[in-house]
Amino acid sequence: MNIPKPSNKRIVIIGGGFGGIRLVSKLKKSGLQIVLIDKNNFHTFQPLLYQVATAGLEPGSIAYPLRKMFMGLPDFFFRVAEVVHIDADNHVVNTTIGSLSYDYLVIATGSTTNFFGIDGMSDESMPMKSVNEALYLRSQLLQNFECALLINDLEERKKLMNFVIVGAGPTGVELAGALSELKTHVLAQDYPDLDLNLMEVILMEAGDSVLGGMREKSSQKAKRYLEQMGVKVMLNTFVKHYNGHEVTTNRGNFQAGTLIWAAGVRGNIPKGLPDSAIEKSRLLTDAFSKVLHTENVYALGDVAIMRTKAHPNGHPQVAPVAIQQGEHLAKNLHRSLKGLPAIPFVYKDQGSMATIGRNKAVVDFYKFQFGGFLGWWVWMVVHLVSLVGFRNKVVTLMNWVWNYITYEHGVRLITKPIRPKGSASAVGAESTVITEVADAP
Amino acid sequence: MNIPKPSNKRIVIIGGGFGGIRLVSKLKKSGLQIVLIDKNNFHTFQPLLYQVATAGLEPGSIAYPLRKMFMGLPDFFFRVAEVVHIDADNHVVNTTIGSLSYDYLVIATGSTTNFFGIDGMSDESMPMKSVNEALYLRSQLLQNFECALLINDLEERKKLMNFVIVGAGPTGVELAGALSELKTHVLAQDYPDLDLNLMEVILMEAGDSVLGGMREKSSQKAKRYLEQMGVKVMLNTFVKHYNGHEVTTNRGNFQAGTLIWAAGVRGNIPKGLPDSAIEKSRLLTDAFSKVLHTENVYALGDVAIMRTKAHPNGHPQVAPVAIQQGEHLAKNLHRSLKGLPAIPFVYKDQGSMATIGRNKAVVDFYKFQFGGFLGWWVWMVVHLVSLVGFRNKVVTLMNWVWNYITYEHGVRLITKPIRPKGSASAVGAESTVITEVADAP
Repeated sequence: MNIPKPSNKRIVIIGGGFGGIRLVSKLKKSGLQIVLIDKNNFHTFQPLLYQVATAGLEPGSIAYPLRKMFMGLPDFFFRVAEVVHIDADNHVVNTTIGSLSYDYLVIATGSTTNFFGIDGMSDESMPMKSVNEALYLRSQLLQNFECALLINDLEERKKLMNFVIVGAGPTGVELAGALSELKTHVLAQDYPDLDLNLMEVILMEAGDSVLGGMREKSSQKAKRYLEQMGVKVMLNTFVKHYNGHEVTTNRGNFQAGTLIWAAGVRGNIPKGLPDSAIEKSRLLTDAFSKVLHTENVYALGDVAIMRTKAHPNGHPQVAPVAIQQGEHLAKNLHRSLKGLPAIPFVYKDQGSMATIGRNKAVVDFYKFQFGGFLGWWVWMVVHLVSLVGFRNKVVTLMNWVWNYITYEHGVRLITKPIRPKGSASAVGAESTVITEVADAP
Repeated sequence: MNIPKPSNKRIVIIGGGFGGIRLVSKLKKSGLQIVLIDKNNFHTFQPLLYQVATAGLEPGSIAYPLRKMFMGLPDFFFRVAEVVHIDADNHVVNTTIGSLSYDYLVIATGSTTNFFGIDGMSDESMPMKSVNEALYLRSQLLQNFECALLINDLEERKKLMNFVIVGAGPTGVELAGALSELKTHVLAQDYPDLDLNLMEVILMEAGDSVLGGMREKSSQKAKRYLEQMGVKVMLNTFVKHYNGHEVTTNRGNFQAGTLIWAAGVRGNIPKGLPDSAIEKSRLLTDAFSKVLHTENVYALGDVAIMRTKAHPNGHPQVAPVAIQQGEHLAKNLHRSLKGLPAIPFVYKDQGSMATIGRNKAVVDFYKFQFGGFLGWWVWMVVHLVSLVGFRNKVVTLMNWVWNYITYEHGVRLITKPIRPKGSASAVGAESTVITEVADAP
């Protein structure tokens, strides 16, 4: 692997996610000029996006301005831009704001939702990979309830109150748990004139367990928690089609006005790289994170697939891998500057965790497995510690304490109005109110 | 004034602003059925919108869910809807979600930006009357700086960094102050490669003083504060035209990529009310807040104009008036239920205040006038106390303490991307970076 001389060469890093920001911070003293590019001016702490979607946190608690993050870093430049095309032969990145030559290029562009081309999915389902998508989901969720109030047809009303989540990975599980807590503790008070028993949260998973990546014991415990909380867990369920109202699966059809797609991701691969370096919509790298069949081009995290003895099919697409790869690449760059050989990457799997609800979480930590209150506590501490920025830690902690004590979700604001499904039939408010008068305590 | 019997009659209140929510909370025990309608599902604390626009606060700190506000209130109904037309003859409100009959109708729809038909203004300028408008302003502000980095033409760059604020009322003054603080304490660090001396904040006012509504001494002090902070204050300046790049005034033309319009408001008057009840885009009411030439229709706050001896031209369009009128109307309704005559409204003017920057505010409080640190302190306390919801008070206080200690504005997120003006010429990132390399410390 061709290692640069420490003579004011430029490294261009695409993506301010977990891998990208770790790499930047570890290259501070490298003598390289660092140029970071991202389509947003902030880093998003994706593990907590689902709490933005369920009105538990505000975007500003989990997003952190990238300029602020690297304020005062010499010979560092950040630009808000999207990559149009990589000209690997000439070592140039073409972006929406012009071209940029590089000596080293790092692709840390992460992943985006993968609908696997399932019919109607990309049009009708709601993904949750960005702050804006989380805000849309929050708005849609609340709008559905506003809309359900206006509809006298029970079936229509029920449809608006049904939420199908596809994919029982951490995101799907945590979202399902948060939704059913929202139902019990918040929506029931907010919408006294609605029968919340109508609301259903259905978690569909193609595999035969929830949290497939975790230990048997954890995934069983998680399933138990979810069911205790009233989530309908459907395993071995393949979604075939969704038309915005009805989900078609191998186990029958289900009415739902909202389908949240958390079933898969694909790498954000910029144009211009050789097809021979692409596999399963990820970039094939060697053990040094270098993209195959390229020069001085590296890939980290979700977008990369690195085959090792321990992980013949590549590493899981989770934050710790990106962070460790970012750190490792920085280390190798430093070593090479000292004329030392590069070291192959080895993933230290510290385990994983997911929270289902208050006092309910599952944790695989090295050899240990635990859950319940302890697991929930550990989950919170770990996430607080990894949140970027002291302010965000404080704000998030405060919100969690607040929500824990009051069972509240403070920010139930519809700020991204979408025309809620079913609102076409949103007439007869009058008659609805009359009904309510009758029902009123 | 025709007063209802306490026999389960319905009062419909349009608008969850300061007047509307005060009225609802004071009618709790009236025996009336209360229906509140708002186009948002939250109440907006408008006095602090400018801090959302300048990345000091998040929307969730100043917006409060209306359902949460009146949770558990018997015989109360809230609906997200917009009024299409009022059928006063048949006592029916037609809304986007259907029709609603009323025994009493209260119009508390507040005001919207008034561009006075000035050429180009409604297309090119940025108003700041809603949470979304504030978020757009925040995004535009930051995008302009991202964009300025990419432009080598000094004139173009300067244009992006210039901000003209039209209207030196509280909103304009507070925004101008916040912008110049952002410049000194935040943007200078965020954009080391930009010469912040290029940035100009210009406050234009048609009248001959800033904060015209306040005492001579206060307005002079405010002007002094602004000028100390580097804001260019232009009095007796009439804006004639804005094309998105250049402002035309009676005192010459000024280059500015952003013009914020805070120069006037007009009442949000629903369709269907007699023209004879409308004056200067406000609803004429008697001293009991009843709209002239109507039956059982009342109007409160910004949308209403009530001529009294003390205020022959109506009251100022500020929160305290709306709050007091809401409270007073509730009182009169209660009195009439007891068979007592209604009492005419008398506005208790407790004075007004504005904050210009840290330790800089002006306060007219009854007979007293003061400013500086004390004024700033009083301003904060008063605004914290009037913020709706304990959570919002805590979050806002925390943010203020944080910003005060760190000189930071935490939430510098571009979440509502608009194509920034001048971005057409956003080429040559390469060359910009080169320049920066030369300039780099």
